[in-house]
Amino acid sequence: MTSIIDNGPRAGASPCIDTAAASRAYELDRKHVFHSWSAQELLDPMVISAAQGSHVWDGDGNKYLDFSSQLVNTNIGHQHPAVVAAIAAQAAKLCTIAPSHVNEARSEAARLIAGRTPGELDRIFFTNGGADANEHAVRMARLHTGRAKVLSAYRSYHGGTQLAVNMTGDPRRWANDTASTGTVHFFPPYLYRTSFHSTTEEEESQRALEHLEQLIGFEGPATIAALVLESIPGSAGIYVPPAGYMQGVRELCTKYGIVFIADEVMTGFGRTGKWFAVEHFNVVPDLMTFAKGVNSGYVPLGGVAICPEIAATFGKRVYPGGLTYSGHPLATAAAVATITAMETEGMVDHAARLGTDVIGPALAGFAKRHPAVGEVRGTGVFWAIELVKDRQTREPLAPYGSSSPEMNQLIAACKSRGLLPFANFNRIHVVPPCNTSVEETKEGLEILDEVLGIADGFAA
Amino acid sequence: MTSIIDNGPRAGASPCIDTAAASRAYELDRKHVFHSWSAQELLDPMVISAAQGSHVWDGDGNKYLDFSSQLVNTNIGHQHPAVVAAIAAQAAKLCTIAPSHVNEARSEAARLIAGRTPGELDRIFFTNGGADANEHAVRMARLHTGRAKVLSAYRSYHGGTQLAVNMTGDPRRWANDTASTGTVHFFPPYLYRTSFHSTTEEEESQRALEHLEQLIGFEGPATIAALVLESIPGSAGIYVPPAGYMQGVRELCTKYGIVFIADEVMTGFGRTGKWFAVEHFNVVPDLMTFAKGVNSGYVPLGGVAICPEIAATFGKRVYPGGLTYSGHPLATAAAVATITAMETEGMVDHAARLGTDVIGPALAGFAKRHPAVGEVRGTGVFWAIELVKDRQTREPLAPYGSSSPEMNQLIAACKSRGLLPFANFNRIHVVPPCNTSVEETKEGLEILDEVLGIADGFAA
Repeated sequence: MTSIIDNGPRAGASPCIDTAAASRAYELDRKHVFHSWSAQELLDPMVISAAQGSHVWDGDGNKYLDFSSQLVNTNIGHQHPAVVAAIAAQAAKLCTIAPSHVNEARSEAARLIAGRTPGELDRIFFTNGGADANEHAVRMARLHTGRAKVLSAYRSYHGGTQLAVNMTGDPRRWANDTASTGTVHFFPPYLYRTSFHSTTEEEESQRALEHLEQLIGFEGPATIAALVLESIPGSAGIYVPPAGYMQGVRELCTKYGIVFIADEVMTGFGRTGKWFAVEHFNVVPDLMTFAKGVNSGYVPLGGVAICPEIAATFGKRVYPGGLTYSGHPLATAAAVATITAMETEGMVDHAARLGTDVIGPALAGFAKRHPAVGEVRGTGVFWAIELVKDRQTREPLAPYGSSSPEMNQLIAACKSRGLLPFANFNRIHVVPPCNTSVEETKEGLEILDEVLGIADGFAA
Repeated sequence: MTSIIDNGPRAGASPCIDTAAASRAYELDRKHVFHSWSAQELLDPMVISAAQGSHVWDGDGNKYLDFSSQLVNTNIGHQHPAVVAAIAAQAAKLCTIAPSHVNEARSEAARLIAGRTPGELDRIFFTNGGADANEHAVRMARLHTGRAKVLSAYRSYHGGTQLAVNMTGDPRRWANDTASTGTVHFFPPYLYRTSFHSTTEEEESQRALEHLEQLIGFEGPATIAALVLESIPGSAGIYVPPAGYMQGVRELCTKYGIVFIADEVMTGFGRTGKWFAVEHFNVVPDLMTFAKGVNSGYVPLGGVAICPEIAATFGKRVYPGGLTYSGHPLATAAAVATITAMETEGMVDHAARLGTDVIGPALAGFAKRHPAVGEVRGTGVFWAIELVKDRQTREPLAPYGSSSPEMNQLIAACKSRGLLPFANFNRIHVVPPCNTSVEETKEGLEILDEVLGIADGFAA
């Protein structure tokens, strides 16, 4: 296995950390910064003072291997020199311009994205992130179909704004659920904890599709504008759909005139070893949303890739939506540099090979050797390790929607060994940058192997 | 009148425009970019190839004085060298980090913002823009009060996402209005087209408050979580509230336990000649939203400034909201540089003086001399000229929610004279950057004077 990424060291010397600046940042943070998804007084956040490639450094100069890609967004790692240079160059040229005008960076980013999306999804509406991308995709679908309702899956995440969080099928919705946004949730396939009493992947796929078609029938096909689905559900647990499922969803949407929105916010731009996860299933959605990996989050950016039929709906009729920073020059210049670097350096193929040759086999080994591991699943650099107290009962190591002292202990054990993990409920996700080297990946997996040894002590 | 801004030429030589690149950008735009608030096939957008200070250049190298500040966001003008340098420096240091960590740029931006907000609004939740800032402010209010309903004004704009656009009180809401987001609209004061049959500002203020209290009574105070109001409504028409109104709203909110959300997305950071427009009225809201001017839109950023009582609600209880780019290092570093430059260069005072000494008197003159001018109003660098077909009937030069051939002709006349205006319905807004020089401002006003001469031809 070779690729440009493994041809030599990428990061330079460790950065010099200003510990006084880090202390001041911490104090000001505790005084003035309100953090997301948190109880403010119960926080003790970590200062990140520097980052490079697959590593970050805290305020005391401790180095961590970043197996989280932050919020699964730094697909090209931290501080990629080509993207940093592109941001500086665009900043010197033209930082911002209103969405109504034409801008070189915006046009070029749209061309590069359209060149990688499947089918004819080649008209791009730019947003600031994934949540508003999903909101606008739903709006397009509603106005295109003249219908109101949206179907989305349990075990999903679609963003933090009101419509997006109500489409979300995980506990982050609960506190915001006004039951008024017109979303109806369906059960997705997930054999390990099947909702359909299945025993095989094939059965799970077929029964999940039967369930979906029944639900469409009961809701009334003519009331349903859109079905929104992460191509591989991400922060809710990385559930690679079984063979046939995505094609089946595509067929049901076509059959009933429902707009199929694929949410590729987390899966897009190399994360799964393809440019977009729908490619694994040979499926072309009607709308596809993206954010995160499009420019690795170096500048806030998201968007919707639109099929010709829906674009045509807004050909002579006004699309009633927008935002000040739509197609922001700095953000789209970062996307141009990111996509170009991913292409030039073969990062998407590298991510695929990390999955098949390194992470996949290692996790399969964990599942065999560690009683605490209930299931492992994933592709590319997008994997989940599901931890259980008991392999027979499959009781999770933390309840749905919550953490547990055991999980907190495992996260702390990762950090003390120099690994920054992504953890959620009873799962640890293995989601390093797409261009993490084989060596770095193995190093991180060895730490996880050790930490899973601790987890085994919690398992029956 | 003197200020640093008038002490010498700020822009260098005109930039060299690459016309071939501009043509290519245009072609790619028409093929791949989906534009906001537009019918895609009816567009012929202008290429902007360069910008500096208060000027932009199109793809053919034509220079325009920017009296729009794009979407009223470039409060410090285009390409301010200190902010461009800060973006390049932060890009080289650390582009992005997850919201859960502590970051120096984020902490410092929070400190600087908290230092300028009125009262004790000193805890900052960062978002990507104004729409999600308003969405999160409503969420905080709903969870803080345990109530669901939101009051907002007609003739308002609060953003493009589903909840925000449903709070909006202008025609951009209509196509998206599901009547399901729990918003009830009230009538704001606006003497020129009074909803209360008033004849004086004092009467308008008092009657608008009576109306609001009646509406609160009929809706049921215990059902109302929040009242959201732009401190000076902006894109809907720049309506400076009459004396006493904002204090009255504050008192009603306090009386009925309603969270008062001041939307300062367009008015914040110098636009009205104060750091925040609420300062004109000596009013402290419970939550204050911002975006645009916080970093002049050089990098997408917005946020909510939170009072201690509401922050305390989420002290030991999780705040159920977030976004990947909350407190983005690049965006907050741009805010630090922007606020510092505004302070150092005296831009807020300069904006105030442009209003009192230059724009205000000029517009008063227009109102006297041009029969097409129905009313002028504003403060700082935040003014509206309301155009009418007939001063007696006050019939607008374009209908509510629409444009007209006459208005299009005036916009074209501005552009052909080298002025980029901000126009909406029957209004032209005078909203240049806060640091536009007196000379530039006078130059733009002279062009407007000429163009209003054309408008007079449409008036009875």
